[in-house]
Amino acid sequence: MSLGDRVLLAHGGGGSLSGALIREVFVEAFANPALLPLGDSAVLELPGSRLAFTTDGYVVSPPFFPGGDIGTLAVAGTVNDLAVSGARPRFLSCSFILEEGFPLPDLRRVVASMAATAQEAGVSLVAGDTKVVERGSADGIFISTSGMGELRELPAGWGMPGPGDCVLINGTIGDHGFAVLAAREGLDFQTPLRSDCAPLNGLIDALFDAGLALRFLRDATRGGVAAILNELASGHEWGIALQGAALPFSPAARSLGEILGIDPLYAANEGKVVVVVDGAGAGRALQVMRSHPLGREAALIGALESGLDGLVVVETGLGARRILDMPLGEQLPRIC
Amino acid sequence: MSLGDRVLLAHGGGGSLSGALIREVFVEAFANPALLPLGDSAVLELPGSRLAFTTDGYVVSPPFFPGGDIGTLAVAGTVNDLAVSGARPRFLSCSFILEEGFPLPDLRRVVASMAATAQEAGVSLVAGDTKVVERGSADGIFISTSGMGELRELPAGWGMPGPGDCVLINGTIGDHGFAVLAAREGLDFQTPLRSDCAPLNGLIDALFDAGLALRFLRDATRGGVAAILNELASGHEWGIALQGAALPFSPAARSLGEILGIDPLYAANEGKVVVVVDGAGAGRALQVMRSHPLGREAALIGALESGLDGLVVVETGLGARRILDMPLGEQLPRIC
Repeated sequence: MSLGDRVLLAHGGGGSLSGALIREVFVEAFANPALLPLGDSAVLELPGSRLAFTTDGYVVSPPFFPGGDIGTLAVAGTVNDLAVSGARPRFLSCSFILEEGFPLPDLRRVVASMAATAQEAGVSLVAGDTKVVERGSADGIFISTSGMGELRELPAGWGMPGPGDCVLINGTIGDHGFAVLAAREGLDFQTPLRSDCAPLNGLIDALFDAGLALRFLRDATRGGVAAILNELASGHEWGIALQGAALPFSPAARSLGEILGIDPLYAANEGKVVVVVDGAGAGRALQVMRSHPLGREAALIGALESGLDGLVVVETGLGARRILDMPLGEQLPRIC
Repeated sequence: MSLGDRVLLAHGGGGSLSGALIREVFVEAFANPALLPLGDSAVLELPGSRLAFTTDGYVVSPPFFPGGDIGTLAVAGTVNDLAVSGARPRFLSCSFILEEGFPLPDLRRVVASMAATAQEAGVSLVAGDTKVVERGSADGIFISTSGMGELRELPAGWGMPGPGDCVLINGTIGDHGFAVLAAREGLDFQTPLRSDCAPLNGLIDALFDAGLALRFLRDATRGGVAAILNELASGHEWGIALQGAALPFSPAARSLGEILGIDPLYAANEGKVVVVVDGAGAGRALQVMRSHPLGREAALIGALESGLDGLVVVETGLGARRILDMPLGEQLPRIC
């Protein structure tokens, strides 16, 4: 039975057309021993007994953008959520919600990105589901990915950041948000703007393996660096002081941010991890990050400071500080 | 900050409105120790090392129908996928994709159904995510649920059904599909038609605990009993012969099926498990099922027969047999 070139309602109906879609599109791309029986659940062997479990929905518009697509995102985003929890990502599941008429070549392209990103991250896609809704009832393709990982032994002080700790990031801030926005609005720049979308578990492994006194890791997705630092500081006596001059921005994100009046600190990243580490280990952490392909532009961007009452501030030079508020909502919807 | 009465784009933006939605709607309903830290991943302790992992998307239209709603379905469906794999369901994650403007009271009602069904099934909702898309880019509410369970020791012969085995089901066939269809089309019947939507892990536990020689379990969702039996028999020398007179149908499903020309054997169930057991254990299996509240109308409906070449047939009386084909697609889209 031929699949045709567009997604049909029947591709989600549980009959033979569903079977053809699963075999020809998903199984070919994701083939692994846990997926192949195509049972109701994947059966997994996991030696440890402490697991991390996470889920995320992906609705990015447009689904294809410079530097990645919704498939890259759907794997990297969930891998990163596991990795920042201190887990080694192992297994993913994915649930597709497709709009009737979605082009099958586009679906194959998304699935190929998922397979490539999973391979890069060393994870297996072991379970999946596809639903198809009528034309007009969804916007092309939505993916929800869940992930499971083995939790490692975490360093003393993990989850307990405090004054004197340093804040680092593995590269330029806000690229994903601006790249998607530019793709959506058809903005054309001389400076190329690419999403930073990537699985960060390798970089994070290197940080743990270095024996650093890590306190906190978080990927700076929706709401950007501003949102996660505000969440981190909220309710504490201490706050976070960022050094404005130390914040790494790509030239393209910087200029697009100025044109649109959007602070890149509020724009989503999909390949950036904010690292909080004991001050004494900050230099070593920076070195470890810069030695990794995804951390070459890593920077020490600030520190936790007593007396800031849960605020996040940016030192803008000459002793001036501006408060970096918690965003109310996303300035750029459908960014991930 | 007040949530208001409709879902806004900002409720999915990762800022303070997202936080309010999470705290006031989800955490209140699902509160459990693994969810409460609200980290990037839930941390779980699982004694066994063999796990089952599954995912399913739920896009049912309308989201509320007699006998349940998309929330009941999103928990029961995933619990059932784990249970029929021989696992004891333990932890669920849920990813919501909401359309801007979706009424918050409806979201609370869905979440309350999820919490109640999770409690009935003895599982915890430990991780979640919410995305909001612009009005017109989704149809109200979609939910993807993933689930994790501990795999039990499976009986000898599990996964290897063969001639002489019997086929049982725990009650009337096709009620969910017809109930959703009737709700969608505004059909009004004198005979009440209710979805059978329910978590089956308790009933399935009872079957395993009875020490029966179970060969195969499957919940008969999309494509109905016809689809799963065809999948089971496909490629084998044996086939499945159903006794037409033994098939349990509710009066409402039977009459609606006749009016619409839809065979209830192709309609979705959300609280029905097809059980294949060694012929010698069929009587005991029927007894165990009928002792459970969700199996009071359980029936022995057929047997695996040599020489049928992978076909599923229904004996319609006087020795006549009709072939029950694999459905091409779903006759009733958006049924789950």
